[in-house]
Amino acid sequence: MHDNRPIGVFDSGIGGLTVVKHLMDILPNENIIYFGDIARLPYGTKSASTITHFTQQTVKFLLSHQVKALVIACNTITSIAKDTVLEMAGTTPVIDVVSSGSGVCTPDMSKRIGVIATSVTIESHSYPNAIKELNPTAQVFSQACPLFVPLIEEGLTKHPAVTLIAREYLEPLIKNQLDTLILGCTHYPLIKDTIVQIVGNKIRIVDPSAIAAHNLKRTITESNKLNALATAPEYEFYVTDIPHRFKQIGEMFLQHKMEKLMQVNIG
Amino acid sequence: MHDNRPIGVFDSGIGGLTVVKHLMDILPNENIIYFGDIARLPYGTKSASTITHFTQQTVKFLLSHQVKALVIACNTITSIAKDTVLEMAGTTPVIDVVSSGSGVCTPDMSKRIGVIATSVTIESHSYPNAIKELNPTAQVFSQACPLFVPLIEEGLTKHPAVTLIAREYLEPLIKNQLDTLILGCTHYPLIKDTIVQIVGNKIRIVDPSAIAAHNLKRTITESNKLNALATAPEYEFYVTDIPHRFKQIGEMFLQHKMEKLMQVNIG
Repeated sequence: MHDNRPIGVFDSGIGGLTVVKHLMDILPNENIIYFGDIARLPYGTKSASTITHFTQQTVKFLLSHQVKALVIACNTITSIAKDTVLEMAGTTPVIDVVSSGSGVCTPDMSKRIGVIATSVTIESHSYPNAIKELNPTAQVFSQACPLFVPLIEEGLTKHPAVTLIAREYLEPLIKNQLDTLILGCTHYPLIKDTIVQIVGNKIRIVDPSAIAAHNLKRTITESNKLNALATAPEYEFYVTDIPHRFKQIGEMFLQHKMEKLMQVNIG
Repeated sequence: MHDNRPIGVFDSGIGGLTVVKHLMDILPNENIIYFGDIARLPYGTKSASTITHFTQQTVKFLLSHQVKALVIACNTITSIAKDTVLEMAGTTPVIDVVSSGSGVCTPDMSKRIGVIATSVTIESHSYPNAIKELNPTAQVFSQACPLFVPLIEEGLTKHPAVTLIAREYLEPLIKNQLDTLILGCTHYPLIKDTIVQIVGNKIRIVDPSAIAAHNLKRTITESNKLNALATAPEYEFYVTDIPHRFKQIGEMFLQHKMEKLMQVNIG
């Protein structure tokens, strides 16, 4: 038995490629369709109704491609529109980064948890809410880091300005004696070195992208939906604007060439 | 004779409010309608076809409000879609920031001109092309500054990170012995102090927003379209997403309260 339908992964833009990278590594047989709404990014500073509207259009597009599972590879979309995605998906499994990241913050390991993310994700309280389901006595401390995304997208991952701005975001946060720090935006793993340099190496860093990929693997393995075909997998990338810049930055995220990269209009 | 129809001013988001501010100052009788496409901003990293498509929707909206003149208060939109706006506007006058800024770079004053702007504006060559019409022997040196907009929108106009990043953009540029520097993005006047600190006060700084406002005044005066009614002017602001953040940052640009601020859907 095998299921060679693709896995659908989506994001407002490019960050979700960190999830794709992990999927390529741990599920090397699987076909993947990625969708990035680059004509309308970023979502992280926009309203709930706008984000929900854009998400509905994206999910409709992916479902029309017969995906066997959906991965919400964007913390902002998860925080605002997860219920909308679940409703549209019906029996198609939906994995998301917020519940994946929160799901490893068990009471034994994580008592004082920091979350860094976009403004919308922080204001939604999605991480504290998800963490408290599993770990009701945990204390969660949040910090929006709105400038990390544009800095990373300009390729300044090693720039002193990133360190300067990161210090300002992180130093007040770590005064809360954290044992765990969740990278609540799929861009942030690209500046993990800078973050670790500031917060020190005694704090456990949780990367929800990696965990979401593992959760997806478990889900499709459990439901016997792995692709057992021995042919090379197909990776398709769809974006809503001309993909020139997406390709350039995306291959930095993916550490892999994007062969099939297409522009679509879903608006 | 008077013409109390409003002036239509538009931008991808918030930067065009710098033009509105100048208009309020020099044309205190005029009614103004502002449109900012904040659901889909920023435009400065997106493709020509997407920017043109969004601009068509915006201009249609403003023309349906019976504007007596249009101001393209965004260098990116001007650089990409000015012809589209002119065609849709018919006999309604269209003022734009690029021709306004270029129009003061006369051969006597400006021989070596620097232009800083978003990536799209720089790549479009709109400033060098417009400057050379008036001033064919001028040399134009360009520098994209893609991080200025997000830094300004986060309110970090006085932050050391802005100075650090501005140095990187500007120091190579001023090695060209500029006599003039055009602020080719309507956000940049908000960090003019930092820019002057780096480039020195011997370089003439051109702010196209201010000049566009003066050009509009001249145009409607010449065509006898000033509003001679003595009633207080009406200012209406339309945006495509929930205006909470727009109001907050917008009033910093405008140095004025926004009373009539409404969300509309044009997509």
